[in-house]
Amino acid sequence: MQLVILLSFFAVIISFAFAVYLYFWVKIQPSENKRIQEVSSLIQAGANTFMRREYGILARFAGVAAVLIFLFLPEPIWNGNPVDHISITLAYAAGTVLSALAGKIGILVATSANGRTAEGAKKDLKTAFLIGFRGGSVMGLAVVGFSLLGVMAVLLITADSTILLGFSFGASSLALFAKAGGGIFTKTADVAADLTGKVELGIPEDDPRNPAVIADNVGDNVGDVAGMGADLFDSNVAAMASALVMSQALDRGMGANTAMVFCYAALGLIASIIGIACARVGKNGNPTRALNASTYTTTAVFLVLTALATLFFKGFQWRIWGASAVGLIVGVIIGITTDYFTDDTKPIVQRVAHASCSGPAFTVLSGVSYGFISALPAMVGIAVSALTAYMLCAPLGEGYALFGIAMAAVGMLSIVGMIISNDAYGPIVDNARGLAEMGGLGEETIRIADELDSAGNTVKAVTKGFAIGAAGLTVISLLGAYMSEVNEALSSAGKELLTGFDIMDPTVFFGILIGAAIPALFSAMLILGVDKNAQRMVAEIRRQFKEIKGLKEGRPGVKADYDTCIGIATDGALKELIPAGLAAILFTVLVGFIGGPSAIGGFLLGNIVSGLLLALFMSNAGGLWDNAKKYVEAGNEGGKGSPAHKAAVTGDTVGDPFKDTAGPSINTQITVVSLVASLLSGLFAAFSLFG
Amino acid sequence: MQLVILLSFFAVIISFAFAVYLYFWVKIQPSENKRIQEVSSLIQAGANTFMRREYGILARFAGVAAVLIFLFLPEPIWNGNPVDHISITLAYAAGTVLSALAGKIGILVATSANGRTAEGAKKDLKTAFLIGFRGGSVMGLAVVGFSLLGVMAVLLITADSTILLGFSFGASSLALFAKAGGGIFTKTADVAADLTGKVELGIPEDDPRNPAVIADNVGDNVGDVAGMGADLFDSNVAAMASALVMSQALDRGMGANTAMVFCYAALGLIASIIGIACARVGKNGNPTRALNASTYTTTAVFLVLTALATLFFKGFQWRIWGASAVGLIVGVIIGITTDYFTDDTKPIVQRVAHASCSGPAFTVLSGVSYGFISALPAMVGIAVSALTAYMLCAPLGEGYALFGIAMAAVGMLSIVGMIISNDAYGPIVDNARGLAEMGGLGEETIRIADELDSAGNTVKAVTKGFAIGAAGLTVISLLGAYMSEVNEALSSAGKELLTGFDIMDPTVFFGILIGAAIPALFSAMLILGVDKNAQRMVAEIRRQFKEIKGLKEGRPGVKADYDTCIGIATDGALKELIPAGLAAILFTVLVGFIGGPSAIGGFLLGNIVSGLLLALFMSNAGGLWDNAKKYVEAGNEGGKGSPAHKAAVTGDTVGDPFKDTAGPSINTQITVVSLVASLLSGLFAAFSLFG
Repeated sequence: MQLVILLSFFAVIISFAFAVYLYFWVKIQPSENKRIQEVSSLIQAGANTFMRREYGILARFAGVAAVLIFLFLPEPIWNGNPVDHISITLAYAAGTVLSALAGKIGILVATSANGRTAEGAKKDLKTAFLIGFRGGSVMGLAVVGFSLLGVMAVLLITADSTILLGFSFGASSLALFAKAGGGIFTKTADVAADLTGKVELGIPEDDPRNPAVIADNVGDNVGDVAGMGADLFDSNVAAMASALVMSQALDRGMGANTAMVFCYAALGLIASIIGIACARVGKNGNPTRALNASTYTTTAVFLVLTALATLFFKGFQWRIWGASAVGLIVGVIIGITTDYFTDDTKPIVQRVAHASCSGPAFTVLSGVSYGFISALPAMVGIAVSALTAYMLCAPLGEGYALFGIAMAAVGMLSIVGMIISNDAYGPIVDNARGLAEMGGLGEETIRIADELDSAGNTVKAVTKGFAIGAAGLTVISLLGAYMSEVNEALSSAGKELLTGFDIMDPTVFFGILIGAAIPALFSAMLILGVDKNAQRMVAEIRRQFKEIKGLKEGRPGVKADYDTCIGIATDGALKELIPAGLAAILFTVLVGFIGGPSAIGGFLLGNIVSGLLLALFMSNAGGLWDNAKKYVEAGNEGGKGSPAHKAAVTGDTVGDPFKDTAGPSINTQITVVSLVASLLSGLFAAFSLFG
Repeated sequence: MQLVILLSFFAVIISFAFAVYLYFWVKIQPSENKRIQEVSSLIQAGANTFMRREYGILARFAGVAAVLIFLFLPEPIWNGNPVDHISITLAYAAGTVLSALAGKIGILVATSANGRTAEGAKKDLKTAFLIGFRGGSVMGLAVVGFSLLGVMAVLLITADSTILLGFSFGASSLALFAKAGGGIFTKTADVAADLTGKVELGIPEDDPRNPAVIADNVGDNVGDVAGMGADLFDSNVAAMASALVMSQALDRGMGANTAMVFCYAALGLIASIIGIACARVGKNGNPTRALNASTYTTTAVFLVLTALATLFFKGFQWRIWGASAVGLIVGVIIGITTDYFTDDTKPIVQRVAHASCSGPAFTVLSGVSYGFISALPAMVGIAVSALTAYMLCAPLGEGYALFGIAMAAVGMLSIVGMIISNDAYGPIVDNARGLAEMGGLGEETIRIADELDSAGNTVKAVTKGFAIGAAGLTVISLLGAYMSEVNEALSSAGKELLTGFDIMDPTVFFGILIGAAIPALFSAMLILGVDKNAQRMVAEIRRQFKEIKGLKEGRPGVKADYDTCIGIATDGALKELIPAGLAAILFTVLVGFIGGPSAIGGFLLGNIVSGLLLALFMSNAGGLWDNAKKYVEAGNEGGKGSPAHKAAVTGDTVGDPFKDTAGPSINTQITVVSLVASLLSGLFAAFSLFG
């Protein structure tokens, strides 16, 4: 055990050291172009504005949650030990703070790397790729390092695994705001900039005259860097926490199983570091292949290292190694199938592009259809990995089967450092493309930036599929965590314990049906929120073009008022997010007080199942439409300006909030609801209408 | 009991007599216009062509199914009594034949009533409404009469309730072909006619030069009359069958509970007859209000009659009456909320119309969002009615709780005769509008036909919501029926019985995840099928316009080759449907042989939950877009020809296969999968990898 703890600390320290090295490596890259520096710092300032306000609102929300946690967890305070209550509240706060810190660091380096990547592209593809990728890696390393450090610290200090759930809930609270709020922000700006700029005025994307252009670039950072980072921080912490809750029960304290969780997480971090260090592309190489190659390297290194560890450490079980390996391999397979549905060199995207020739309705219909179909392989993959892990580990004894599923999730998330690096690479090179245009770096530079950007888009779809798959496995474990929380509450109330949630039980069925409707409601509220917010911003952009003399004509020295647009996007995003989040929580509370703990078990299941389905559908359909548009723009089916192009642009606009707002936010909605349910399980056990 | 049987036969006879009366009443209405007669008989011939081919393919499918049933139901034939096997196979055949017969009658009268309604509209609204509505009622009465008669006959002859499941499976097989095949047919023709006629050539809808125009009219009949009729025949039979399986178990044979099922079904039929007889509209009245008023009349009459019966008959329980009443009232509430989301005098449709001003992407995004939200009230309604029925009836003793849910479904479906009448009214008046145009009956007649058509559209959305709600409650009962089948198989194999399906059991969870993905796959395959098939038909229409000289110019005596278009729609529909149906069945079989009976329990649950969600979403979003387009066409948001109108047309085209093909076919997919699972439960119990 001690050796494993040392190993884990070593991994955390190495990852921080490597992140610091990469940060300074990015910082010493040349940044000479004044215009790029200027715009780049505008983006940085905008991102900071958003994050400051977001964290402000979050702080109030977290304050209320902290008070509730203090009063009711692990049981109502008047029945329990106040020290536990203080610990869990502090753990909750630590969860929010560490996640926020990781996001902050990610934004800091991403907004430094974007301009330098643009200037690197002036030199060659190889340099630009490295700056973009290493910038993203800082975020990846920070997220994984902080999550492992946080989980270890909480467990070593308190030696109480239920306090980990508090830490995990902290991470989820932040993820909800960062991912869904950031998602609304980014699409508000994107849609408004396109509607007024490209459609109404006919000025190109990324034209600095457009007041929304900075907000659009800020959006990429807050949505994909900070938001995705917070989302995966949340999944990673939840996976580790639920595995640790079970391992502690199996070990009756610290033991081989707990050591295994830490060891695998630490080795995943080391594998990611090796993968990141190996990422390279030739002068005329293929950046997509480079990104995928480093993912596969990380996977292979992880499998080898964990096999060695299982051989070396006493008490590590091969069957559990098998469960982790299955989880990771299925994760990679989900990524590959997602790629099949969203890559423009594959038939699906080309079919949607071809359907666009018959008009926008056919772009939408074919995209919706393939989006629906694309959910199947991932759902099957999650189902198969859960079942295999369970069957592999069940012979080890009671409790091992569910632990196996949790370890499959840990395995799938082991390479999360690499995944986040790939994901954060996207907005950096996307920004770089815009900056190259604004800084006037010339055709060739823009072409290189475009190539990097396109690789980012392809890889993004894969990482999203991966993130959803991992969340799917994790929430199965959360269902287990919920049940043990409820049973603790029931046993202390002297009531009969739950042995499971039978779908033939009408309260369970009642919960399932309502739970299944919530992700649809939540997504719809976010999409409508983007729409409403974009309308506000469009009005502001029109006002500026009307009132600021010379802006439209691009008279030198006349500048758009970027800040107001950023302010609108920020305030609107948070305003639209809160009702959606509250609706999800409200239904959880209502179902709990009507149907009791069993109904909530059903509610969580319905929520997970329909949430996975909709998240996969929306993320993949969105990626598919985005790439179908790019495929047409590359000169196919009539190319730019053709009717097929117009139709494909409509598809892309529909897909934007699907893939960047609603789809990826469903994960955090599920986690938040699961944790709220665990939090309130004591109350549901005590008071309910039919429970 | 005997009194109830007499009552039921009386109700069946009354309903047939009334249907025959209405049929001849429609027949003696004047039909003078030669052109209308001609087109009307073309439509009738086209519908017959489709149905002949459809029934031909169905016969082969049903033959295979009948052999399987004969061999394996109720247990493998080498273990059982051959008489039971013959009975169940005959019951299966009777289920398909009665449903087909009802569909045939419905088409016959609908295609006679359409022309007469057009000519009636020349006189006044009142006459035209009555012809259209009474034509539809023949179908409604036939469906309900045949279903009650069939269920009674099977039970009285065999006195074995499991044989009823065979009858129910027969009805489902036909519904799958009629609803999904008809749905592909109707949208193939609609989309192809619009794409070539309205978009390419700029000729009006229903222009006889367009070779697809007859196929389009045929489609309305085969999709909405025969298809919807078969769907509701299926739901109605399934609801009665599952209630009777439970009542027979409770009564140990015939008794008060079984009598109650028959009595309520018979009183529902009588209430529908009264409602139909009362339907009237003034000369300048509102047809929507008239249709809704007769629905409410039927509801009230049913509640009063059943209350009297409960008072009068010995052994009828008030709690069970309560469960039925709750089911029916929730059905009406689901209808009203559906109306809220799809009626163009309400804010939602108007908001989508307004969003269309920003372009088609916003029509789609807002429609998808409100479609998602619209699923919530119906899901909550189904959940609440199931829970209430269960809680009401649980105190009556063991087994009564699930029986209560089944009786809620029977209650909800009691007014199905009225619902089908309203639904079949839609295509009759829709056809009438086209015929009025083709027959040159003048502006005023077309205006009246338009008004009748618009009422049909509004009511259609309500009946669809109702049909899905009823199916939701029915499939809960089917889950119960599956469990008793499995346990019979397990007990005869000497294995441990199932007590339920625990979602914490990994095989159940495995099934749930895969089951949830199937309705998405099935819908996507149908939508893509419509698209592919429409492309074939577009090619044929273009060929005709090129090769048939004088067709485009409308030279007198030159006729389009309508039959070829009908042939393409027919063959294509059946060709596209079969892979979708087989995929659903294949996954059921795979999951069963991998995960065993528990996995199938989960599979059915996942299928039901995601099926309900997607069916509600697609039906409502489709209705919403249709009416948003009509709202714009009525002169709002810029009216016809405006950018908002173009966008709204895109929304409507997306919505067409949503609401008329995929959405309403999901019901039958769920029923088919449930019954296949019950059918094969013995095999799953005997052989499976992890079960």
